[in-house]
Amino acid sequence: MAYRALTEQEAVEYVKELPGLFEKGATLTSHEIGDGNLNLVFHIKEEATGKSVIVKQALPYARVVGESWPLTLDRARIESEALRTQYKFVPDLVPQVYHFDQELALTVMEDLSDHILMRKGLIEGNRYPYFAKQIGRFLAHTLFFTSDLGAHPYEKKALVKTFVNPELCKITEDLVFTDPYENASTNNFNPLIKKEVEEIWKNKPLKLEIAKLKLDFLTRAEALLHGDLHTGSIFVTEQSTKVIDPEFAYYGPIGFDIGAVVANLILNYAGQHGLQSDRGKREEYREYLLTTVEDVWNEFVSQFVQLWHKQAKERSAHVEGLWQSYVNRLIQDTAGFAGCKILRRVIGLAGVADLNSIQDDQTRAEAERLALRIGQELILKRSSIEESTDITDIVRNVTTRFDQEAATA
Amino acid sequence: MAYRALTEQEAVEYVKELPGLFEKGATLTSHEIGDGNLNLVFHIKEEATGKSVIVKQALPYARVVGESWPLTLDRARIESEALRTQYKFVPDLVPQVYHFDQELALTVMEDLSDHILMRKGLIEGNRYPYFAKQIGRFLAHTLFFTSDLGAHPYEKKALVKTFVNPELCKITEDLVFTDPYENASTNNFNPLIKKEVEEIWKNKPLKLEIAKLKLDFLTRAEALLHGDLHTGSIFVTEQSTKVIDPEFAYYGPIGFDIGAVVANLILNYAGQHGLQSDRGKREEYREYLLTTVEDVWNEFVSQFVQLWHKQAKERSAHVEGLWQSYVNRLIQDTAGFAGCKILRRVIGLAGVADLNSIQDDQTRAEAERLALRIGQELILKRSSIEESTDITDIVRNVTTRFDQEAATA
Repeated sequence: MAYRALTEQEAVEYVKELPGLFEKGATLTSHEIGDGNLNLVFHIKEEATGKSVIVKQALPYARVVGESWPLTLDRARIESEALRTQYKFVPDLVPQVYHFDQELALTVMEDLSDHILMRKGLIEGNRYPYFAKQIGRFLAHTLFFTSDLGAHPYEKKALVKTFVNPELCKITEDLVFTDPYENASTNNFNPLIKKEVEEIWKNKPLKLEIAKLKLDFLTRAEALLHGDLHTGSIFVTEQSTKVIDPEFAYYGPIGFDIGAVVANLILNYAGQHGLQSDRGKREEYREYLLTTVEDVWNEFVSQFVQLWHKQAKERSAHVEGLWQSYVNRLIQDTAGFAGCKILRRVIGLAGVADLNSIQDDQTRAEAERLALRIGQELILKRSSIEESTDITDIVRNVTTRFDQEAATA
Repeated sequence: MAYRALTEQEAVEYVKELPGLFEKGATLTSHEIGDGNLNLVFHIKEEATGKSVIVKQALPYARVVGESWPLTLDRARIESEALRTQYKFVPDLVPQVYHFDQELALTVMEDLSDHILMRKGLIEGNRYPYFAKQIGRFLAHTLFFTSDLGAHPYEKKALVKTFVNPELCKITEDLVFTDPYENASTNNFNPLIKKEVEEIWKNKPLKLEIAKLKLDFLTRAEALLHGDLHTGSIFVTEQSTKVIDPEFAYYGPIGFDIGAVVANLILNYAGQHGLQSDRGKREEYREYLLTTVEDVWNEFVSQFVQLWHKQAKERSAHVEGLWQSYVNRLIQDTAGFAGCKILRRVIGLAGVADLNSIQDDQTRAEAERLALRIGQELILKRSSIEESTDITDIVRNVTTRFDQEAATA
């Protein structure tokens, strides 16, 4: 059937026709729960049994801050294929795909509405004791088994071809790696930080490092990335982590995915300036966030290296010193990409609620300035980073200096 | 029509049916001139007018030193598409493709039989005064315009997809980057250099650097490479250079193509030990070869950088310092890949006539030892290389030490 956006009722009819999901005569309710900017998301439930599914349909355009531009429906294929690929390696950490319809750009998948978006959870000050272990495993397994280390050479190349994703990559290329560092019309920042932003636009060493990271994003086909792994693409409960929405999936540098997680934890860290007024509680929660950053990297690396030792398919994998040199570059990439992702969330088109939900403009500006400082340091000092505490030390030291300056100002 | 290997007569009939090549009633001669290991190559000529074409048909197997293994016919598609892509940028430096037939894995193209293979020309001691300028332009233009610097992001990604080439890449992965550095059954070296080869198999720092270069080959999708740019893939006359046989084409690191040219000039340099007995003439020809190495790099880089300044499509291309850092990495890659390509030609499956045509086993072993030394130094010292003379100085210094050791032995 040719593409058309479904109504709530049509979504029900569609799901009823699929084998293996609901009984023929089932009574189903349907609610469109998406934000309507990119996709329709139908929550379809059989009240009698409690069984439910999600129907996600891509819209042929994107709407961001009032603007609307056409956007490929092929992203629905990318998303469903990425979910299925990831499901092979970490079935408990992604929604199960029940059905994909190429014509309608529509995926029927597991309902995860007992989870909440992690960004929301962090803004509320919740803690997720299993998150680092789970996201570390997600990263290690999905990235290792799709890389040249863990996949057969033919399989890897077939995956590269499947996940060529020009339109969504272009969004990242522009919005993460280019627009925020010049006076681009897409930028959207707090007028109170204009001075700091303009300093970034003039910072030549910084712009050079970001341009190098952009070239890495463009060329380094290391593994199948999620491609947009911020805390709004992660569903959590206290026990469970589910990674959703991989429509930006493509073959890129591994550090980009890890960096996205790190960046969004740090964005919340910066946001604590306005989110939490009690200084003691703020410090405590910030320490929780930094410990989580360390744990995410440490979990990732210990599992990734274990896979490398036990399951590498690449014949050269066991050459002495290779994994160490590989992992060493990964953490530096992670810091660099995290830095870009922090800067773009403050300066560029799409902000984050961790900062944007701070009502007072001055307070928000303070939090944003802190984020900008941390982002820049991560980029400029990445070549000296060897361990996860080198990353969190940068965050701590920048914060200390920042607080001292504020106190003496 | 379903695939079948054509006879000489069938090749004539096939060509006669194509519009725009020959008159309907033309009398054509046909000679199969390939080596029969990978492809049939028919030279088809109309004696009356002197007009001629080449018909190249891929065979569904490869035969190397007696062994035969199946090999994808898709390489004919890759080759014809690579030739057509390159033709857009350097029409005078590649054969023109007149016709491609996917079913028959067959390409009809410009006849270049007034040229000879450059490897043969170098073995005969010829000089090619325009070669460096021409191959430098070939490299600069084909690599720049297919890279993220010179191609639109969508165009580059479409090309990446077109040139996914798993089977032929696997040959390179095994024969250039893996087998020669361990006791693999494919290896095929002069028994007199067994000691030197075994030292390489035990050289951990060397094997680590080669493994890193292999990962670069596997992951760094920088530009559409020729993929097998040795002097047997280059046709020359005194005035003209034509690059042929890009069946290994894929998206990889730019330095791999430049390194292939450099490596094969150096292999001939090492071969001079046995090819040229007159010491004065040998020194003179070696200097010609090293000057050519320098000129190839210098021509490449000056044209590549000029394109970068004038025709870059990538928005970040003009960030201060980027092209310098890019080019600096390129020459180090070039040296590293050249080193691997030298080692594999001495140790691995496919040797080169520059060495293999030396009749005396002892003399050949000397030349091979020199090549092994140079190859290793290029790999191990590549991070200190900044200019083309740093590469040729390594060659000169290794040779001087080598000759001194021989004199005192």
